[in-house]
Amino acid sequence: MNKKKAVLLLSGGLDSATTAAIALGRGFELYALTFYYGQKHNIEIESAKKLANFFNIKDHIIIELPVKIFHSALVKNSGIEVPKNRDPETDTEIPPTYVPARNILFLSYALSYAESIGARDIFIGATAVDYSGYPDCRPEFFECYNKMANMGTRAGLSGDCFNIEAPLLKMKKSEIIAKGKDLDIDYSLTHSCYDPYVDGTPCGECDSCKIRRTGFQEAGIDDPVKYDKKDGQN
Amino acid sequence: MNKKKAVLLLSGGLDSATTAAIALGRGFELYALTFYYGQKHNIEIESAKKLANFFNIKDHIIIELPVKIFHSALVKNSGIEVPKNRDPETDTEIPPTYVPARNILFLSYALSYAESIGARDIFIGATAVDYSGYPDCRPEFFECYNKMANMGTRAGLSGDCFNIEAPLLKMKKSEIIAKGKDLDIDYSLTHSCYDPYVDGTPCGECDSCKIRRTGFQEAGIDDPVKYDKKDGQN
Repeated sequence: MNKKKAVLLLSGGLDSATTAAIALGRGFELYALTFYYGQKHNIEIESAKKLANFFNIKDHIIIELPVKIFHSALVKNSGIEVPKNRDPETDTEIPPTYVPARNILFLSYALSYAESIGARDIFIGATAVDYSGYPDCRPEFFECYNKMANMGTRAGLSGDCFNIEAPLLKMKKSEIIAKGKDLDIDYSLTHSCYDPYVDGTPCGECDSCKIRRTGFQEAGIDDPVKYDKKDGQN
Repeated sequence: MNKKKAVLLLSGGLDSATTAAIALGRGFELYALTFYYGQKHNIEIESAKKLANFFNIKDHIIIELPVKIFHSALVKNSGIEVPKNRDPETDTEIPPTYVPARNILFLSYALSYAESIGARDIFIGATAVDYSGYPDCRPEFFECYNKMANMGTRAGLSGDCFNIEAPLLKMKKSEIIAKGKDLDIDYSLTHSCYDPYVDGTPCGECDSCKIRRTGFQEAGIDDPVKYDKKDGQN
């Protein structure tokens, strides 16, 4: 019997890797999309390719977006610095690493692709627990997007509905990592840092590095990725 | 005083041209997006360029999408024919020219761009009167998308809301054309046909041609575009 198809948004980070493993565990055949939007950490795309190979993704499309439409600290030559050593617990403002409507755009690509190939499930590795407060990572956003997706597509309108799946949404980073280890994910293939050194070494100090490092510590698992050389062994 | 910015989805057809004129009439400075998605009528992109020039669009970005994610009769090499001489009045099924989640994806690009440049108004030339029944052209879809856009963006969440404007939504094609003539639009610059001849001549028989021709006839205005040569003078 043919497996059920699903579309996966694959960034190259540990959340989308864990989401891939969860979706595969549920029996889906995965079709993945990865985006270049001028991100300073475009090395994550190399991680996405390795992960697509690791997970035997059926088809992996890398999509190049027009960089000039994104104003964000994550984008090269934006003139905005990636903030370092923020405390996401106390600094609750949405940081300048926010990318305007990023998940909306990525999900919309996934929706076009899913309807075209006959998939109805779309997996995204968003989390709303250990995160930077981005509006497009919250449960109420996904619920609203899902409703809109079913209202604006032929399949959805006919009752053959889409299902936006964000299985990590309510998990702590340490729980995500523990889950991924259970599922035998090779996290050395993943990249999380927003602002890596030229050789790809993560800075250790941006939101993404900090959340990852704390997550591995809390899970009691060694992070296979090594940080800023100044920093020694993590 | 600086003019208020707005993002316009500009296809090269007469609806988006009329929408441009309406938005300019309301005092906006326009930033336009045009998409190549493998459409058989990619000649519309040349029309979009001419219209951007005609309307003094501030910035016009042409975005190339990955063709393989769109399964539609509108797409080259899809193996699906554009239906001819359908009667949209009686044939109420969504035709195979439907492009999966097209307006969702286009609006999502517009949203990223708008938030990045500080625009809050997004203009789209959709109409739900003389149209092909596409789910992403209906008023309830736009209302739902607008709500989602404000829930999933930093600006929207802060109360600095986006406004998806579809000023033609409830107008008949003949009313749109009459409005455009009042606004001195040069409709000879526009292209509507889904399936033109190699030299760009419209077929005259697809939904888009039929709706356009009837619109001009009902408005009592000569269509400056000439149809299939077999057909003589329209």
